[in-house]
Amino acid sequence: MAKEGADMTEETEYMINKNVGKEPENVETTGDAKEMRAVILAGFGGLNKLRVTKKAMPELQDGEVKIRVKACGLNFLDLMVRQGTIDNPPKPPVVPGFECSGIIESVAENTAGFEIGDRVMAFVNYNAWAEVVCTPVDFVYKMPDEMTFAEAAAFSLNFVAAYMMLFEVANLREGMSVLVHSAGGGVGQAVAQLCSTVPNVTVFGIASCFKHTAIRDSVTHLFDRNIDYMQEVKKISPEGVDIVLDCLCGENTGKGLTLLKPLGTYILYGASNMVTGETKSFFSFAKSWWQVEKVNPIKLYEENKVIAGFSLLNLLFKHGKSSLVKSVMDKLLCLYEQKKIKPVVDSLWALEEVKEAMQRIHDRGNIGKLILDVEKAPTPLMASDSTETSEAGEEEEEPEGDNDSKERMPFIH
Amino acid sequence: MAKEGADMTEETEYMINKNVGKEPENVETTGDAKEMRAVILAGFGGLNKLRVTKKAMPELQDGEVKIRVKACGLNFLDLMVRQGTIDNPPKPPVVPGFECSGIIESVAENTAGFEIGDRVMAFVNYNAWAEVVCTPVDFVYKMPDEMTFAEAAAFSLNFVAAYMMLFEVANLREGMSVLVHSAGGGVGQAVAQLCSTVPNVTVFGIASCFKHTAIRDSVTHLFDRNIDYMQEVKKISPEGVDIVLDCLCGENTGKGLTLLKPLGTYILYGASNMVTGETKSFFSFAKSWWQVEKVNPIKLYEENKVIAGFSLLNLLFKHGKSSLVKSVMDKLLCLYEQKKIKPVVDSLWALEEVKEAMQRIHDRGNIGKLILDVEKAPTPLMASDSTETSEAGEEEEEPEGDNDSKERMPFIH
Repeated sequence: MAKEGADMTEETEYMINKNVGKEPENVETTGDAKEMRAVILAGFGGLNKLRVTKKAMPELQDGEVKIRVKACGLNFLDLMVRQGTIDNPPKPPVVPGFECSGIIESVAENTAGFEIGDRVMAFVNYNAWAEVVCTPVDFVYKMPDEMTFAEAAAFSLNFVAAYMMLFEVANLREGMSVLVHSAGGGVGQAVAQLCSTVPNVTVFGIASCFKHTAIRDSVTHLFDRNIDYMQEVKKISPEGVDIVLDCLCGENTGKGLTLLKPLGTYILYGASNMVTGETKSFFSFAKSWWQVEKVNPIKLYEENKVIAGFSLLNLLFKHGKSSLVKSVMDKLLCLYEQKKIKPVVDSLWALEEVKEAMQRIHDRGNIGKLILDVEKAPTPLMASDSTETSEAGEEEEEPEGDNDSKERMPFIH
Repeated sequence: MAKEGADMTEETEYMINKNVGKEPENVETTGDAKEMRAVILAGFGGLNKLRVTKKAMPELQDGEVKIRVKACGLNFLDLMVRQGTIDNPPKPPVVPGFECSGIIESVAENTAGFEIGDRVMAFVNYNAWAEVVCTPVDFVYKMPDEMTFAEAAAFSLNFVAAYMMLFEVANLREGMSVLVHSAGGGVGQAVAQLCSTVPNVTVFGIASCFKHTAIRDSVTHLFDRNIDYMQEVKKISPEGVDIVLDCLCGENTGKGLTLLKPLGTYILYGASNMVTGETKSFFSFAKSWWQVEKVNPIKLYEENKVIAGFSLLNLLFKHGKSSLVKSVMDKLLCLYEQKKIKPVVDSLWALEEVKEAMQRIHDRGNIGKLILDVEKAPTPLMASDSTETSEAGEEEEEPEGDNDSKERMPFIH
């Protein structure tokens, strides 16, 4: 069991449960197994709160399918869940994770349209980072034949969120311009691809310098996140942009609103600025909360501007919009089959490597999506390796690159 | 000249300039006249700041047409202009009015597509309430043959604003629901008609009780503005509504946001709650400003909501969106020609009756649009009549009905 003292926050060894030695490849045939491997978050805090352990198989409920998981998506939000920096966090211990792909292993009543053996991707309200997941069919979508499980786990959340923000909340049309923060991340890359499906859309991307070579072709203009992007955007487009997509929050909200053209839409879809160090920092939290501009509607009236918030998970699990999301997924799968969009996978990680994967997303080292590959064996640590957390404290800039972890990281590109 | 002492705020006599006796019908032929009749706002304040006087003809500028005005629209905003309750008011004396209809009398260079004799409607950045108006062709639209001048003056601002809010800012689609305040007003009636062009849209209208008989058929559900409309809407639609259109501001902003469904859009397009008495009340202004909820974007994120402001006049005259407005006008004229929409004219008033007309809009007595009919002669006052202003002070509710003024009012319905 994980030790939970404060002195353990820089714990570095893999916390692989001793019972996890057997080959996961054969698990599919053991339909009567009572236990499965899963990532557990023992409490809110640092990386040491995560471990892989055995857990009782979930029970199928009416309207649900049981999925033998092949791959899971890792999002910045999972990091905020770990820290407890989210609204209404669940009571730990909890299995994190909101999306996965895999094969349907069994179906309950009222699951018409799905059958055993279907390759699917799914949203889950927690519990995705496990070998087996049960979730209502409202949140399950069949995968195209040519889509890999890793792609599928990189597809659902990022592309649905990007699509709904661009086309449901805002109204992206020919000739418009979009500014997107974290352009190298999973949502950022999905936004860039979806913008390219509309004629003559200008995309202003903001990303760390070391990603620029890799993502330069995906956007029209690319800026370093450490420079004054407002001035740079205004040089190119003095009248501003039509849509701003912000996953940072804090001072970027005011800047985003200022950069909007009349009738433009600013959408807040994350608050990653609230995260600085490895554990929840009330200082960062308060700073971000204080910096975010409270908006007077009368100012919006005078300026003809729109401000919106978008949380796909709340939409699915709190606001009951699964059928709308399903219709969006249908459109996205058409675009995928027409080869107009394709998820960008940054890297694959074993469940036992979840801490290194989280550190990578914390350090903003990723280009595209981080995937937990359930069937992957952990990559052995090199002597020089260290998963010491950066404990960035209150510094605003992410560490330059991530040279240490690159060496042990199984990039797929 | 108007006396401007505070003791004149209840002045009741018509302030007709002595030179205005000649028949306006023949003015069209006097193309070389140097002067015209116009309504002048001498300073910010009560009704006594308005008078009709002679004024030098405007000079045509490059890109402008000169319009012999037949009818002008009167909006609640004109009342706020009179009081000086708007952002960046012009320096008086000024001719109020933002829209008119009439016949093109002459054209400058660079006015391709328009010629003398064209029946047109136009937006003007002030100066509409006059016999002759010059305005750039960017703001001028040809009228359909079957449209009267009164209809045209009731059409532009209300229908363009309603259309852009429903279809450009929000994204009204089949099966959605819309809540509109001041459902009996010009914009309210335009909103109701445009909603009926989309299948299965539910309209919740809020209006004073005495209007209910007249407008009952234009909306799905109608509520008295003096009751707790939130409870009534929730009884019918517990999950809320998709779009809230608010021209009141103040406490209605918070209520509107609360009533939104996830992904719903609240649009503020006016702040008539800032007006209570005849003159600007800093108390009402401050109360409205204080009551309006400053919105934290993080709350919008958690609730998946959208808040927008919409000011058509700023869009046209400050934000340079005249070509977008022109494309909207084209769509609206199609709908008009298909007889799907038709402006509702409340009443016609002579220029000299502008004070009575303004009092009627202040008292929310109108159903549809108030029109200043430039060729109309003032209706003689009856002995029992009074244009005494209501000086409502800080009371929130408008006076019940407007029985006095009805008697001398030339309703067209």
